[in-house]
Order: sequence, then structure tokens, then C-alpha cells
Amino acid sequence: MRDIDEFTITTAVKQMTGPKADPRLREIMDSLVSHLHDFAREVKLTEAEWFQAVQFLTQVGQICDDKRQEFILLSDTLGLSTLVTAQNNRKPKGCTEATVFGPFYVEGSPLYNHGDDISNGAKGTPCFVTGTVKGLDGKPVAGAELAVWQSDDEGFYDVQRPEVHEHQARGRLRTRDDGSFEFRSILAVPYPIPHDGPVGKMLDALDRHPWRPAHLHFMITAPGYERLITHIFNETSDYLESDAVFGVRSTLVVDWNRHEPGVAPNGTAMTEPYYTVSYDFVLNPEA
Amino acid sequence: MRDIDEFTITTAVKQMTGPKADPRLREIMDSLVSHLHDFAREVKLTEAEWFQAVQFLTQVGQICDDKRQEFILLSDTLGLSTLVTAQNNRKPKGCTEATVFGPFYVEGSPLYNHGDDISNGAKGTPCFVTGTVKGLDGKPVAGAELAVWQSDDEGFYDVQRPEVHEHQARGRLRTRDDGSFEFRSILAVPYPIPHDGPVGKMLDALDRHPWRPAHLHFMITAPGYERLITHIFNETSDYLESDAVFGVRSTLVVDWNRHEPGVAPNGTAMTEPYYTVSYDFVLNPEA
Ligand SMILES: [Cu+2]
Ligand SMILES: [Fe+3]
Ligand SMILES: [Fe+3]
Repeated sequence: MRDIDEFTITTAVKQMTGPKADPRLREIMDSLVSHLHDFAREVKLTEAEWFQAVQFLTQVGQICDDKRQEFILLSDTLGLSTLVTAQNNRKPKGCTEATVFGPFYVEGSPLYNHGDDISNGAKGTPCFVTGTVKGLDGKPVAGAELAVWQSDDEGFYDVQRPEVHEHQARGRLRTRDDGSFEFRSILAVPYPIPHDGPVGKMLDALDRHPWRPAHLHFMITAPGYERLITHIFNETSDYLESDAVFGVRSTLVVDWNRHEPGVAPNGTAMTEPYYTVSYDFVLNPEA
Repeated sequence: MRDIDEFTITTAVKQMTGPKADPRLREIMDSLVSHLHDFAREVKLTEAEWFQAVQFLTQVGQICDDKRQEFILLSDTLGLSTLVTAQNNRKPKGCTEATVFGPFYVEGSPLYNHGDDISNGAKGTPCFVTGTVKGLDGKPVAGAELAVWQSDDEGFYDVQRPEVHEHQARGRLRTRDDGSFEFRSILAVPYPIPHDGPVGKMLDALDRHPWRPAHLHFMITAPGYERLITHIFNETSDYLESDAVFGVRSTLVVDWNRHEPGVAPNGTAMTEPYYTVSYDFVLNPEA
């Protein structure tokens, strides 16, 4: 295997894979190498551009830590996350649509009781969230675990605030016997994805903004059903037509109702204006 | 821009690029996004595989430091480096061929005089290297800067040895008026590319070895000529047919001659066996 040129290299790389490689890994890597090489040939990538790419990817890796995942941001902003989410979540009509996971989920957030305030000190306009979890057959799903997470009113998740050492504006609930849930949180607002790192520089260079429309993240798991990872979006939000990570689904955009001070649906006396929003999730039964 | 699926996402991402983006960057990113998405659709990448890729790339980035460039290793082992080198170095017949740069070049290595021993303490069988640098017209190139770097007899470059704090087995020379150069170093041996990191794990999973045939790196620069980055290979070496980074060119494979103890070509009395190797480089004039 000598004298490989820019055309014969593709076959040469594939031929190097040994007989003991896992067949699925071989399939993935063969395809990756083909498309990567086609890309580099198509744009006649120069050595200087190649080196810029090496430096960019290195910076993306180096800024990652236990609280920041810049490669997920890169995947999100290049549409790969939406692609992978879509092709792995083709659910029957009537099921709640999935959307991107994002980089801010945290495992092991607190388990709350219905009606609790999950904001736990995060600042924002109060918002009461209610809804149900049902199966595609319309039957309530009791005991489904519903994890929820969102940013505060300045657009930051708890994990983005070095001074915050507890879970804020995130938590878990288990649906009641009738599939219902309710909790208090804060009004979701549009926020820019973290753009002080290499992905932010990339968006700048592409003349793109880093903003996402206001949304609340949900991950719902229940035995016998496919896991659902999704958001609900506020229909009055900016950026619904230009979400930096391509996550908006029409069926996930809902009314968030503003209320003057008074008695909230759960009986709390509110001295400031507050919001209510409700969503009924429909899970796909496992095959 | 809502309700994007795994097919419409590709156009959606490209349309997001703004009017102020640099045209070349737009061209590169449009092509990259198309091929990346085609890859993910072709193999029907799952969410778990996507997450494995995120973790892998993060590990590649995190192991990089001022002495280790794992993304270059990744590019080398996936053949991207050879592709980019080849398509950017189509030189006229008669010129010395280029090959991959590799991750072990260090800027600012010591400037030596002809005949000096550049091993500077690196262990190995002595080897005397001679040659010339000429233009394609056959005229000697005087004062060309020739940077050379290689591993020691255990296959490690100086930068891979934490206990070594000076330049070993690397250096720079300026060709004489007749284009000639000569220096003493050590015999190059086959070595595995660093395989204790994520790229090593990838090679393992692909049932591939990490070895490179014995070689000596050169980078030659001279005003009026294209920069030449290349190696010379030892024709008796293992792995010439399966170089882990696809760098072997027939025209770069040469005889390394073994000699019994005696007087070396430069007059040094050698009490141990030694090698000699010679190569005449031909530079391409700048357009
Ligand atoms: Cu492609
Ligand atoms: Fe979010
Ligand atoms: Fe090398």
C-alpha cells in the first residue's frame, strides 16, 4: 500500500479495517470516511484550512468539562442533533413529537411533589405548569417519571452559574394515577446558547445568531413506553422561526397565559403577575 | 422554520448562514453539512451512537496539549491528512513528493552546522545523512533551510519523553552553496503512533495496528520554491505496506547502508556499526 493519492486513499483506509472489527462499527466508519473524503475533495480543502479545522476541534474539546458540552452545541448548531433525533423518533400520528436533547440536562435532579416550586431560588416570573401523560390509546400513564429543566429569566441554566451549587429550575415528578402532573416554576425566556467559546465564534463567522425561542425541556420515561425527550415552546416567543438548533415543532408550540395578581390555580395567593401553561403528552408504546 | 425533519434539516442549516459570512467559509460549511448529514442518514445513526461520537471527540480534544495533537492523529489514521497533502502538492514530475506532516514537528529546533550530531543524546545506532537540495531545473539551492526530526531507537520523539527537556533527534541546517547538506543522527526505526488515547482505542476497535515504517521527517524551505514537507523511508522496514497513516511513496523509499566499525564518511572513527543514507531533494519553483 504505497503511492496513495487523494482518490485512492478512500479505499485504502477502508481496506485497513481488520476482520475482527465489529460489523456495525465498520459500516459506520466506512461511510464516515467516504463522506469525509468526498467533502475534503469537493471543497479542495487546503492545508491551512485543514489546520484551522484541527485547531477548532481541539478548542471545542478543550472547553468541555462536567458542566459544558461544546461538541453537543456543535452538533446542535450544525443540525446533526435534529437529524438524529428525527430519524430515531418517527412516532405514530397522535404521539407527542420529540426534539433535541440539548447540553443542559443533569441526572439525579430532585424528586418533587405535585404543586412544589421547582425553581428553587432561580429568578423569574412565576409560572404554573400542568398537564397529563397518556399513552397513544388515551389511557393515563400513572407513575411516569417526568424530568423538567429550563433556564432562569436571564437565560442561564443553573449549571451555567458558577455561584449556584444546587439544582435550580430543574426537577423530577411522578405522574398521579390519572396521569396528571403539576408544578410551579418560572417563565421560560429566549436565551442564546453558550457563545463565548469556539461554537460561538463559528456562529459569528457564519453570520448566525445563537438564540433559542423560550422553551421548557421534558424527558418522560415510563415502563412499556418509548422515552420521550422534548420541549414545549411559548408561542409568543422570538426566534421560533430561527431557532439556533432547529428544534421547533408546531405541535409543541403552545399558549402561555398571563394572569394578574390573585389566586393561582393551585390556591397560592400571588402578589405579582404569573403565567400558566398546560400540555398533554402522548407516549408511544414500546414495540 | 419549524417542523424540520431528517431530510429538510440540510437545507435549513445552509439557509441559516447569513449574508455577511465569508464566501469560502460558506462553501466549506455547506459542503461539510451536506456530507455529514448524508453520512448520518446513510448509516441511520442512532442516538446512542451519536452520543458515543460526542464522547469520543471530547476525549480526543481533552488529551491534546502543547505536546500532543490527537486530532492530527485522528486525521492521519482516517486518511484525511494524506488526502489533503496529496491534493495540495501535485508537483511536476521530477520534484520530490510530499507526504504527511505528522504531529511531532516542533518549531524553533536548534540550528546545526554541517557534520553536527543532531541526536543530541537520543539513543540509537549512529546514522550519517547526506544529500542535496536542488530546483527542478537541476540548479543547487543554496541556503535552503532543512528541518529534520525523527524518533529514537525506542520509537519515541523527544516531545513524548517527559524527562527530556531539550531538542533531541531534531534540528535545522542551511544547505551549502552547492545545495549539499550533511549531519549525523541515529537510525530511524518503525514506531507505533501514540495509541494510549482515544485514537488508539479506535484503531483497536477497527482491528488496525498503529505502526509506521522507519522514516526521517524533512521540511525544506527556500525563497522562490514551494515548501516541501516529506519523509524518507527505510526500504528494509516493516510496515511499508501498511503504514498506519498512509504516508509511503515509492520515490521516498531508499537504501540505508549498514557499515562495520571504521572510519565514517566524514572522518569520524566509529567503534560501533553505523548507517549511511543519502537523498537528493528536488524543489518545485513557486508559480
Ligand atoms: Cu458525502
Ligand atoms: Fe434549553
Ligand atoms: Fe514520524
